[in-house]
Amino acid sequence: MADQEEVKLYGVWSSPFSRRIELALKLKGVPFEYVEEDLSNKSPSLLKYNPVHKKIPVLVHNGKPVAESLVILEYIDETWKNNPILPLDPHERAMTRFWASFIDNKILAAAVKVVYSEGKEREVAILEAREHMKMLEQQLNGKDFFGGDKIGFVDIVGNVVAFWFPINQEILGGEFFTPEKFPGLFEWIGKLQEIDLVNECRPPTEKLLAYVKARYESSKNAPK
Amino acid sequence: MADQEEVKLYGVWSSPFSRRIELALKLKGVPFEYVEEDLSNKSPSLLKYNPVHKKIPVLVHNGKPVAESLVILEYIDETWKNNPILPLDPHERAMTRFWASFIDNKILAAAVKVVYSEGKEREVAILEAREHMKMLEQQLNGKDFFGGDKIGFVDIVGNVVAFWFPINQEILGGEFFTPEKFPGLFEWIGKLQEIDLVNECRPPTEKLLAYVKARYESSKNAPK
Repeated sequence: MADQEEVKLYGVWSSPFSRRIELALKLKGVPFEYVEEDLSNKSPSLLKYNPVHKKIPVLVHNGKPVAESLVILEYIDETWKNNPILPLDPHERAMTRFWASFIDNKILAAAVKVVYSEGKEREVAILEAREHMKMLEQQLNGKDFFGGDKIGFVDIVGNVVAFWFPINQEILGGEFFTPEKFPGLFEWIGKLQEIDLVNECRPPTEKLLAYVKARYESSKNAPK
Repeated sequence: MADQEEVKLYGVWSSPFSRRIELALKLKGVPFEYVEEDLSNKSPSLLKYNPVHKKIPVLVHNGKPVAESLVILEYIDETWKNNPILPLDPHERAMTRFWASFIDNKILAAAVKVVYSEGKEREVAILEAREHMKMLEQQLNGKDFFGGDKIGFVDIVGNVVAFWFPINQEILGGEFFTPEKFPGLFEWIGKLQEIDLVNECRPPTEKLLAYVKARYESSKNAPK
């Protein structure tokens, strides 16, 4: 099978969403070609493969495209069945999907508000984001990973919390996401950093920090 | 198995989200107890079973709760494997999840803007919603249902477009969702209405119309 397979990932180095797909493919040992997109000048391939959202990541497997990171992760798990990233039990699968969706729909929405606000409004947004992250943290409940003793779907989706939020914290200052407020999540980040593949699938900290800082500075809501 | 199973659905009669779960359970032939919630006075059970979102629908299967309608639908399909509502092929499953998520995240978000706006802003929102619905319509591509020759996941999730959007159209007037603009979707609605179970799992039109009208009237954005 492997010889005839063509797997291409269209992504952007700084995007947690395409990094998720990279990590899942590597955890499965699926060889793939990575295509870096320039979002200010999207390639005809990206527009052809994701005409609806015109966004990365897109996985193209033997010519067939799949878009939206959570959808792609499920596709990967169903296509390459070794090293499952979703649990097998239906109720555990449901809980996994629930928390993955919680990260993307609640935590990220709250974090976006933090970034695009200022002053009092930002303080309120930080409290809301923290409340959501506390709920996520409680799901670890003494485990090393959300997936139990090895990383799984929620750990992969949580990459944005683990590696992008600390960058935002560094820029924002204050108490958006600190080890004091989230000892459990920071312990989990430590465990993630012990995994080589995880480190391969995230941007270098300094490079990401410079990139995110530049984005803040070009926005009107730059922290003062 | 069936004798020992306890399946409870916490829902609200006017919610497309709980109606989706009702329909999926009925398509599977799973007996269940339905509990109507009062959202202005949520029951201790609802708050206990969905402490994160405190929203309906919640499915409780042998004491274990599952929340979020798309997550519940996947759970139902994985737990009761007869009459599958998702296709079996991984790429078709991915497309199915993509379009279900498109309905909830794009089409519904656009429709909410239509409802909660007025004047020029509403006109813009209607155009945006129509653009998204056109993309959905194209997926029918000559088929009776999104699921092919029988209803499936996207048809179930699409209940809100099929039966709630025409109600809003009737109240709004204009051209938000008309058979002229969407002949394919209206043909699909006709096919859905030929299925008894589908009709069992939607509110009576007049009752829903009165309910939605009252909600519009109590809002500041009531159509003039």
